Amino acid sequence: MTESQAKHELGILREKIDEVDRKLVDLLNERTRVVEEIGTVKRQSQLPVYEPKREDMVYANVSAHNHGPLPGDSAKRIFERIMDEMRTLQRNKMESTKSQC
Amino acid sequence: MTESQAKHELGILREKIDEVDRKLVDLLNERTRVVEEIGTVKRQSQLPVYEPKREDMVYANVSAHNHGPLPGDSAKRIFERIMDEMRTLQRNKMESTKSQC
Repeated sequence: MTESQAKHELGILREKIDEVDRKLVDLLNERTRVVEEIGTVKRQSQLPVYEPKREDMVYANVSAHNHGPLPGDSAKRIFERIMDEMRTLQRNKMESTKSQC
Repeated sequence: MTESQAKHELGILREKIDEVDRKLVDLLNERTRVVEEIGTVKRQSQLPVYEPKREDMVYANVSAHNHGPLPGDSAKRIFERIMDEMRTLQRNKMESTKSQC
């Protein structure tokens, strides 16, 4: 493969990555909206915000559905980051709700 | 909202999260497959594997497409984790290819 052919091929593959990333952003926002709804329900009913057992269930769902090529431990670390970001958002929202009381 | 109503509502919302997460896993695997193809093209044409400018383009694409509620800095940190995991996979693959030579 010449360098020019390789660069052309890379351009096509990178457009695919960009398309996948846009879909990932959409899904992450959809997830955030549902997490916000969960936060609202918990605040209204005074259920605990942080439930470690539920996180284990999230990892179990991810792991059961992951058939590769992404290794299981990589998938877990990515979801750790996703949940960590969303937990922080919820915590900030709770703090700002409290400060309005 | 009673505790029982809240728990019922949470169950429905968590099923939505699980569904979103399964779609996320599918997309992450699709992304991994394209990254592997990119790695193959780069190895065949001896182009550099790590290109920091390309990473900036990934963040720019993500940022331009992110209309919230996920904040931009949260989205960036999630994609940092995704790219970091995929870079590690590529590096491991290169090491194992070298050791076969």
